[in-house]
Amino acid sequence: MSAPAGTTPAAAAAGDLAVHPAWLPDAAFAALGARRVTVEIPAREWPAMSAQVAQTVRAEVAAATAAHGGAVVGAHEDPDVVLAVVPHSDNDPESFVFVRDAGSTRITAADPRGLLYGLFHLVRLGEAAFEGEHEVERHAPHTPLRMLNHWDNIAVHPVMGQVERGDSGGSIFYADGKVRADLTRVGRYARLLAAAGVNRVSINNVNVGHLETRLLGDLLPEAARIADVFRPYGITTHLSVSWAAPVRLGGLTTSDPADADVRRWWAEAADRVWAAIPDLGGFVIKADSEGQPGPFAYGRSHADGANMLAAAVAPHGGLIHWRAFVYDHEQDWRDRSTDRAKAAYQHFVPHDGTFADNVVVQVKHGPLDFQVREAVSPAIAAMPRTRVGVEFQVTTEYLGHQKHAVYLGRMWSELLGFAYWGPGSPTMADVAAGGHPDGDGTRIGGLAAVSNVGDDEFWTGHPFAQANLYAWGRLTWNPGADPIAVLDEWIDLTFPGLGDQGREVLHRILDESWETYERYTAPLGVCFMVSPHSHYGPSPDGYEYTPWGTYHFADRDGIGVDRTRATGSGFTAQYPAPWRDVYESPQTCPDELLLFFHHVPYTHVLHSGTSVVQHVYDTHFDGVERVLAARDAWAEAAGHFPAALADRVTERFAEQVRSATDWRDVVNTYFFRHSGIGDERGRAIYR
Amino acid sequence: MSAPAGTTPAAAAAGDLAVHPAWLPDAAFAALGARRVTVEIPAREWPAMSAQVAQTVRAEVAAATAAHGGAVVGAHEDPDVVLAVVPHSDNDPESFVFVRDAGSTRITAADPRGLLYGLFHLVRLGEAAFEGEHEVERHAPHTPLRMLNHWDNIAVHPVMGQVERGDSGGSIFYADGKVRADLTRVGRYARLLAAAGVNRVSINNVNVGHLETRLLGDLLPEAARIADVFRPYGITTHLSVSWAAPVRLGGLTTSDPADADVRRWWAEAADRVWAAIPDLGGFVIKADSEGQPGPFAYGRSHADGANMLAAAVAPHGGLIHWRAFVYDHEQDWRDRSTDRAKAAYQHFVPHDGTFADNVVVQVKHGPLDFQVREAVSPAIAAMPRTRVGVEFQVTTEYLGHQKHAVYLGRMWSELLGFAYWGPGSPTMADVAAGGHPDGDGTRIGGLAAVSNVGDDEFWTGHPFAQANLYAWGRLTWNPGADPIAVLDEWIDLTFPGLGDQGREVLHRILDESWETYERYTAPLGVCFMVSPHSHYGPSPDGYEYTPWGTYHFADRDGIGVDRTRATGSGFTAQYPAPWRDVYESPQTCPDELLLFFHHVPYTHVLHSGTSVVQHVYDTHFDGVERVLAARDAWAEAAGHFPAALADRVTERFAEQVRSATDWRDVVNTYFFRHSGIGDERGRAIYR
Repeated sequence: MSAPAGTTPAAAAAGDLAVHPAWLPDAAFAALGARRVTVEIPAREWPAMSAQVAQTVRAEVAAATAAHGGAVVGAHEDPDVVLAVVPHSDNDPESFVFVRDAGSTRITAADPRGLLYGLFHLVRLGEAAFEGEHEVERHAPHTPLRMLNHWDNIAVHPVMGQVERGDSGGSIFYADGKVRADLTRVGRYARLLAAAGVNRVSINNVNVGHLETRLLGDLLPEAARIADVFRPYGITTHLSVSWAAPVRLGGLTTSDPADADVRRWWAEAADRVWAAIPDLGGFVIKADSEGQPGPFAYGRSHADGANMLAAAVAPHGGLIHWRAFVYDHEQDWRDRSTDRAKAAYQHFVPHDGTFADNVVVQVKHGPLDFQVREAVSPAIAAMPRTRVGVEFQVTTEYLGHQKHAVYLGRMWSELLGFAYWGPGSPTMADVAAGGHPDGDGTRIGGLAAVSNVGDDEFWTGHPFAQANLYAWGRLTWNPGADPIAVLDEWIDLTFPGLGDQGREVLHRILDESWETYERYTAPLGVCFMVSPHSHYGPSPDGYEYTPWGTYHFADRDGIGVDRTRATGSGFTAQYPAPWRDVYESPQTCPDELLLFFHHVPYTHVLHSGTSVVQHVYDTHFDGVERVLAARDAWAEAAGHFPAALADRVTERFAEQVRSATDWRDVVNTYFFRHSGIGDERGRAIYR
Repeated sequence: MSAPAGTTPAAAAAGDLAVHPAWLPDAAFAALGARRVTVEIPAREWPAMSAQVAQTVRAEVAAATAAHGGAVVGAHEDPDVVLAVVPHSDNDPESFVFVRDAGSTRITAADPRGLLYGLFHLVRLGEAAFEGEHEVERHAPHTPLRMLNHWDNIAVHPVMGQVERGDSGGSIFYADGKVRADLTRVGRYARLLAAAGVNRVSINNVNVGHLETRLLGDLLPEAARIADVFRPYGITTHLSVSWAAPVRLGGLTTSDPADADVRRWWAEAADRVWAAIPDLGGFVIKADSEGQPGPFAYGRSHADGANMLAAAVAPHGGLIHWRAFVYDHEQDWRDRSTDRAKAAYQHFVPHDGTFADNVVVQVKHGPLDFQVREAVSPAIAAMPRTRVGVEFQVTTEYLGHQKHAVYLGRMWSELLGFAYWGPGSPTMADVAAGGHPDGDGTRIGGLAAVSNVGDDEFWTGHPFAQANLYAWGRLTWNPGADPIAVLDEWIDLTFPGLGDQGREVLHRILDESWETYERYTAPLGVCFMVSPHSHYGPSPDGYEYTPWGTYHFADRDGIGVDRTRATGSGFTAQYPAPWRDVYESPQTCPDELLLFFHHVPYTHVLHSGTSVVQHVYDTHFDGVERVLAARDAWAEAAGHFPAALADRVTERFAEQVRSATDWRDVVNTYFFRHSGIGDERGRAIYR
């Protein structure tokens, strides 16, 4: 564990890279940096991470005060603000207490890691941190597992590229087939993540290639270099591993979890890995999923597989994040008895209670795959004795590839707040934090999401997609936060000095941008009207008749998937009451999920009072109007933003308008060709 | 021009490569090789190719007689057969005369190249060449331009692979990013082509990458090595070139054909190329086509572009094959006024009469792209003052990827025999040979096709796809040949000693296999119901709403493309009478092209008496039945074939059955979902 390379705040703030500063421009530290600041961290035998974070806190304060006219002072020198590690009543090393009284602002924490989060709390508050009085506020994360998964390949994949489903250029970790020599940018990324609240990062794609498998072998020192860069910001590194590693790397002839040599190989691999990275978080694994190898090949269950790995990493305090994205990707479209939506539940719920204590079963938030609108996954609520983690996607695989301005805070907020047992009951976020009503409170799975960052100048392709990364971190810390207030934080930090007009325009563009995207793409929860493979642009029948299990069965009479117990696939039975009944009937099913749960005629009348087909026309015309309005609003306000950023946004809006118009016309024409029903209002629908 | 490397007949026959001998197994030479053979070629200053072919003829005869007990004897030694170069009444160096009288068989030709074709004529005849009497027969090729185009990349393309649209493994020319050191297999390929009648080969993909551009530069000696291997078999080598070569290779800032530096660069490039390969055939070029650069960027026409290249190569006797596959591949699907089928005609016919004498405008046989059934291209018949070459595809991009048993001889025969001006008028093959009724007889464009060969053990993936390569050569030599008789030749040569049952089964499987493939895939000339990109497997709406210009406009009422003058795109106006009127009316349009020319209701009654939708059901059920019958027939006969070949065929049949069944069910379901009309005979159609 060497000292962090090139990641001092001074270097990070100095703009030495041609990279946008995102939500940590120099000016974000102006209020704090202008103060007289005391940092009190007692000398103690801290764990390595805490010790390094302590250095980071001191360095951040020193850099900010040097830049903005304040000073680092002793406690007796009448500081404006004190950041102090003190004995605490709780033992959450990430929590902190904020208070302001008698003209003094104070952050206290039991561990330097909490102090760092407190520091960034002050940064967010700006001048407000030093005005008036503040009651004592304790801030603690909702869950200790707040993770980003990188789908970065070391070797550029011939089809999927370097960052699978990435839309922000190459990887910040890898270039030219190896770990970058210069990890300065990773250090800056770590700082951004810490300021948003993320504390764990897996650094390679869950589809693990041959080269990436070697991260457990000869490339381990390279992985350790990355971990060294994350550590000073309180971020734990995880590795994605291949189930086939014992064969690929160890030369064994099997990966059977019951095989003693396999178990020994993994135990020795874990010994080796933790020797190199003593505080590694653990392994993420995609097994028996979309062609990846897994325990099924040996007649073993996912519990067998996960527990075998868990045993190997347990002596080191490691976790296994075992993904539940297991389904038949070679389904026969003619087989109406198979419903991909049921797969995660079917594969994992029977094993509830059998997973080891250090296994997190990581379930996607919806039963399909990160659609703009799908039901929540019932599997999340069905394993009270399992650590269930929930997986989201910050990268916008199905949501416009960071070419469209789509803010996802509201979508995540709605999902995280979904009350599985009816109003007032524990939410998705609660379950992820161990709060299943039938659980014992210890089964904490946490929250994970696929990162949207690449080596792009603005990190995220579309500069506004930075807001998604920021919001992801903030919502993992506090799922109950108002996502529009979070957006406001991002605006304040990212665009210091932006006037009211600029702020108002950003809200106008972004606040309801998720709903806008839904309006011009796949309607009413029907899902998967995207172009196969790329997942960008419309192709209403693109997944019909494929082996992927994602169909909508449109014919001349109607559309949608009957997932009822009465006449359909029976998927509704996987939900607890009341949802199993709410979704079962088209009379009670929410409009926005109607086609997810029911096959209905085009003339079916929604709760809104319009027919399905007219709803499609109305929302699609309106969706494009909204995009045009957003583009026009941007055109008026662009001058308030830095020119390079403004140019990028303007360029993206041109593509969004083109794409949204194409979506509108394709979807409208598709529904017209199938239904034969024209638009009530006589707008143009191509034949 | 060095001596051919590793291409002696003895080496080729000795089975030194683990490669199937195709239609030239050792046994094919048994009849000839058992005879006393005289070869008489006068010493003369032959052109290099003729001189080397003379060596080849002698070596072939020597090897055959050595292997089969005959002998090379002098003319006075009572030969059974004489192969002699003699002064001829015509000056076609490829023609030969065959005669048998007084117990002696005689091949005469004016040039060793004709003698080589005569030699392979004897091989095809086998014992029959030495029995009874034969009238004097003159054999001459229909056209002197009988070409194969290889779409082989030197560098493996990340999406398209090494051989674009290839289904037979890697390239026989290239491996590991360079020309193979060992070209033995290319020599064997040259021999197979000569035995089939092909005399020109372009050796790299028309989509020319940066590495392949260097074939005009530092890689030129490597291209010369390949030409050296083709030359002894009378085969002329061509190169595909990039329009952007002056920029990529020459460092110029433009490729404008009006620019003096560009013209000079090409002239110097031609000087350099012909210095290395003095008998190079010329350049093939895909310009302004599917993203390839071309003269449009400079406001120049295709005539400007082609003539500029033509001027550069004319001093060397070179040809420019300028492809007419020019269309808007970024079409707006909403734009019903644009019809891709019209594009080749629109772009090229206005320039008729302006192309240089050494330009061949190479037009695909159909107006779209090698579909199982499409109309013939009207552009072929519309340029009497232009050398029009016709392009076919031996590789089965849209015809089953050499996983399905599909013999294309009948398809090509039908197309080549299409009489553009009504029954008895000149055919497509006639036009390609300079026989346009309004032409002067000199405008010979010839026939070209994309090769189906790769480094596969059986050359062509499906062993039966060898028959397509063979038939392609034979039909370019004689377009009027009976394609089933050609298939018989292939069977005789390839499977010596095969009994009647085996032969009968091969005919049962292959004779109508093109029609079978049509029956289970896209019906009635509707085209493009394939999966986008891969072009394998069904996706009825796969190209609907795309930018590719290939739509069928299916809705709940009907399907098909209205290309009439009266109400549609007006494409029918591009045909001469009578076809412009035959195709114009659904009453006279042939059933098999109905949906190519007309948008009709599903209930439209065909000439056959059945409705469109019932026709779809009937043909699709029947198509799969035929595939099953073929598979079963094969299972009975497989034991008559070599085990490795039989295993490969059996494996392919399993995939063909799976795929054909999928096609049947997807297409039937698609028509059912759209029409709501069930099968009259109550067979299973999935909903």
